[in-house]
Amino acid sequence: MTHRTTSAVERVRAAYGRIAQVDRPEVWIGLRPQAETEADAAAVDARVAAGEQLPLSGRVFAVKGNIDVAGLPTTAGCPAYAYRPEVDAPVVARLKAAGAVVLGATNLDQFATGLVGTRSPYGAVRGAVDPAYISGGSSSGSAVAVALGIADFALGTDTAGSGRVPAAFNGIVGLKPTVGLVPTEGVVPACASLDCVTVFARTLSEAEQALAYMTAPPGRELPDQAQRRPGPWRVAVPERAQLGELDGGWAEAFETAARRLAEAGAELLPVDLAPFTEAAAMLYEGAFVAERYTAVGAFVDAHTGSADLDPTVAGIISRARDVPAHQLYADMERLAVLRARALDSLGDADALFLPTAPGHPTLTEVAADPLGANARLGRFTNSTNLFDLAAVAVPAGEVNGRPFGVMLIGPAFTDGRLARIAHLLTSPPQQLAVVGAHLSGQPLNGQLLALGGRLLRTTTTATTYRLYALDTTPPKPGLVRSREGGAPIEAEVWQLPAEGLGMLLAQVPRPMALGSVELADGSSVPGFLCAPEALEGAREITPFGGWRAALPLMERNATAPR
Amino acid sequence: MTHRTTSAVERVRAAYGRIAQVDRPEVWIGLRPQAETEADAAAVDARVAAGEQLPLSGRVFAVKGNIDVAGLPTTAGCPAYAYRPEVDAPVVARLKAAGAVVLGATNLDQFATGLVGTRSPYGAVRGAVDPAYISGGSSSGSAVAVALGIADFALGTDTAGSGRVPAAFNGIVGLKPTVGLVPTEGVVPACASLDCVTVFARTLSEAEQALAYMTAPPGRELPDQAQRRPGPWRVAVPERAQLGELDGGWAEAFETAARRLAEAGAELLPVDLAPFTEAAAMLYEGAFVAERYTAVGAFVDAHTGSADLDPTVAGIISRARDVPAHQLYADMERLAVLRARALDSLGDADALFLPTAPGHPTLTEVAADPLGANARLGRFTNSTNLFDLAAVAVPAGEVNGRPFGVMLIGPAFTDGRLARIAHLLTSPPQQLAVVGAHLSGQPLNGQLLALGGRLLRTTTTATTYRLYALDTTPPKPGLVRSREGGAPIEAEVWQLPAEGLGMLLAQVPRPMALGSVELADGSSVPGFLCAPEALEGAREITPFGGWRAALPLMERNATAPR
Repeated sequence: MTHRTTSAVERVRAAYGRIAQVDRPEVWIGLRPQAETEADAAAVDARVAAGEQLPLSGRVFAVKGNIDVAGLPTTAGCPAYAYRPEVDAPVVARLKAAGAVVLGATNLDQFATGLVGTRSPYGAVRGAVDPAYISGGSSSGSAVAVALGIADFALGTDTAGSGRVPAAFNGIVGLKPTVGLVPTEGVVPACASLDCVTVFARTLSEAEQALAYMTAPPGRELPDQAQRRPGPWRVAVPERAQLGELDGGWAEAFETAARRLAEAGAELLPVDLAPFTEAAAMLYEGAFVAERYTAVGAFVDAHTGSADLDPTVAGIISRARDVPAHQLYADMERLAVLRARALDSLGDADALFLPTAPGHPTLTEVAADPLGANARLGRFTNSTNLFDLAAVAVPAGEVNGRPFGVMLIGPAFTDGRLARIAHLLTSPPQQLAVVGAHLSGQPLNGQLLALGGRLLRTTTTATTYRLYALDTTPPKPGLVRSREGGAPIEAEVWQLPAEGLGMLLAQVPRPMALGSVELADGSSVPGFLCAPEALEGAREITPFGGWRAALPLMERNATAPR
Repeated sequence: MTHRTTSAVERVRAAYGRIAQVDRPEVWIGLRPQAETEADAAAVDARVAAGEQLPLSGRVFAVKGNIDVAGLPTTAGCPAYAYRPEVDAPVVARLKAAGAVVLGATNLDQFATGLVGTRSPYGAVRGAVDPAYISGGSSSGSAVAVALGIADFALGTDTAGSGRVPAAFNGIVGLKPTVGLVPTEGVVPACASLDCVTVFARTLSEAEQALAYMTAPPGRELPDQAQRRPGPWRVAVPERAQLGELDGGWAEAFETAARRLAEAGAELLPVDLAPFTEAAAMLYEGAFVAERYTAVGAFVDAHTGSADLDPTVAGIISRARDVPAHQLYADMERLAVLRARALDSLGDADALFLPTAPGHPTLTEVAADPLGANARLGRFTNSTNLFDLAAVAVPAGEVNGRPFGVMLIGPAFTDGRLARIAHLLTSPPQQLAVVGAHLSGQPLNGQLLALGGRLLRTTTTATTYRLYALDTTPPKPGLVRSREGGAPIEAEVWQLPAEGLGMLLAQVPRPMALGSVELADGSSVPGFLCAPEALEGAREITPFGGWRAALPLMERNATAPR
């Protein structure tokens, strides 16, 4: 997780190497000259060398082109709109202050109006995995820069889903924090009352770390304001029919992801998605779109017909001029009713679980129906900010070789809780087969318990294993797969949090090892093995059928003079 | 304060007697038949006789014509809009449940759109004190019904000041609770997001008692959510210049009222009124007026030209149809900025102190300029609900024989605190001259301290008093005004809360009395006197110059055999 061993300068060089390698010029609107970025990185390295604590030193990040970075043009995806801010947006300043280095400003759907990533005179941003498919938007360049391994993390914004849909389409994580948690000063408004700054990263932990420095006060844990009753996470999952039409295989991928939550211990609850879906439709079809005219309407009117304006975006914003205020009040009243229904339906669930989007279109499909294709994409994301909720978007496998993503959505200021639930998907609990001192009641079993382990079942290995008492003090078990002379060896299967398994691995002493062990039922799970050199001087105990049964023999040996 | 000795039936009869006497038919849109109201009152009396606790039994109240009362038409001031609700609005139901009896539905500015009380096809409501002057609105009939002594209290509503301006113009109290404190179900919306139900009464205590049963849960103390530092009330008072033009004598009346707050112990602070004034102008001049179209615009459009529509109100609402939503968003952003400035300027003040209105026009003046005259009236009230504040409007004397009123405005959910500060004006502390056992250090001085008394100064009476030691055990002082033989008698002037002085009076034993005492400086304050019969057997101690000086003599007498 840490880049401390890599200097900031090395990290920057690697980033520019990757930029050249991937050949996706449309990702950037304002890529900084490498020399300039390296100079920043060298300054970070010098401060670290002088003993300064810079927790994000060695990290490089990209910034969506509607967020001010001093010295780079803020374009909002429109050349004629561009200005050069003299100061960083506070969120950028905070990340820099923590040691992260900005690579540049990224492409976006113009004025952050779109979920497709194609509405930009700087070029349509192609998906990171399959360039025939859209990147998603509006934070298109930021998402692709992360997905392609250029940046460690990147800033986006999210009004209707712009910080989540591109995460789903590019197989990365997108955190959409509670509105108000991250300052929006220095951000070109889309809908000023709904906008928030988001962060993309390839792992949830990387995104959480960056977000911790984006919030005020910086460096704190993600908030989890509400007290909750003890017990397993409670996750609300709508019925298949309420999700509406989805791309082929997406319903099954969603059900698989939900099942993984349940397998990881979450309790799945029913929920009525109807108020969410109705509110989502209001975002563009109703009066709320008028807030986009408030933000940039005068500019768009003054540049009618300019090639700098994306015609689809300009049309949406111009039409918003004519929305009457009385309709806005009516929509706000209706929204309040829907929000109450939505929260009532969620009840005491910790989170609502949804696909991030209903499907992933190609660039060609979006070009054929720019408004329709875009509207479909926001079905699950549009309501989040209208309802003042927080969301975490994470990858959940692939469908047809392209990423599939899901969201956990919860009340304002439960950002920390949502991330912890999302870890069940990004780092689901792992199984571990133990055959020796980690067995229940044996001396090292406490290690498993301390790492959050839980005994799933007692079984045996497949019949193809031989077991040895290694010539160590105390003796350790050596489990060895063997074409002949094997027997079923007593084994326990434990479940550990993924990070717990990782920590255990870091503690395993030579000559022990962890590797795949075949069990009696034919399944394979990671388990304790031993390195080949360990067998020297070892005593085979296979005939005992397991470590416990051989213990009396070993104890006798231990007390005998050596 | 209590009507317990009057039965509900007697109270209702008195109300109808008063209705006949005052001859103000325009007050009512739906006055209930007396027999029906008496039947309700008889039911209340029967329940009380059966031992039920009905804290508002014996109280009669009027309800603004935009609030549902089962069986009465809800008109909102428009005959064509009228409907007959089957159930009471919750606020009405709560007051009825506490034993109060409804007299009827009152007149109002149509659709609660106005601060004048003249915009109604049911007739312009004339001021209670001088019928050539407007009553103020929109809660016109309710205010006048209370001011004329018909109802004990009355319900109004307040969006722009409709629950306060009529209080000021008719010399009564108007409580505008924090939005959300009193349910608005069953109320015809004006601006649904700003509306609140208010209460008028002739005294602050009566209004507070009614409000306690209007809130949820009913019967509780008015809230005072925020902790405050100990110390005197801190009241923010704008400079004269920021108040703008006022009716003749109103600036002086306001300054007098502010001085009374200071004399009662409040600390007066400066404040910048500019953000309040700018926000106030936005209520009708900006986009917020569109919420009125949302509420009743379709109805108004469908009845264009109907005699049932007030032409001024219909014009305001019709024009609101064309307000664009993008302007509303811009206004909401501007409002958020102004609100932050306003709260910052208030700082840690407990309340903002303002005249309730800038002046009080005649019916003729309003008819000559319906929009201009109305707009002026809201200068101090319009911003309150836009800023989500609470307010208490109370009378503060008269100017040119007509009532003058002031407001205390504070943060949401400081309703209780505002009322306590307002009591300083409606029941300012009183002075009391003491000459005997209530002097500092004397046996009864503790009574004054227990009632909140504070020694202001030590002085003497005018030279026209004689002092006696009455023939009581222990001896009491008898202060008697006398044309001859008088002398300056030692006196202390104490300040007591008004209610404290009232409670002291209730404790004063025969033959003592309280009455006006002239002091050495020629001023007069209430002080201890004695009834004439008390002088029988009394011993004159005038030559001692005061009670303390005579004490040795009295002590000798007390120990001597009688």
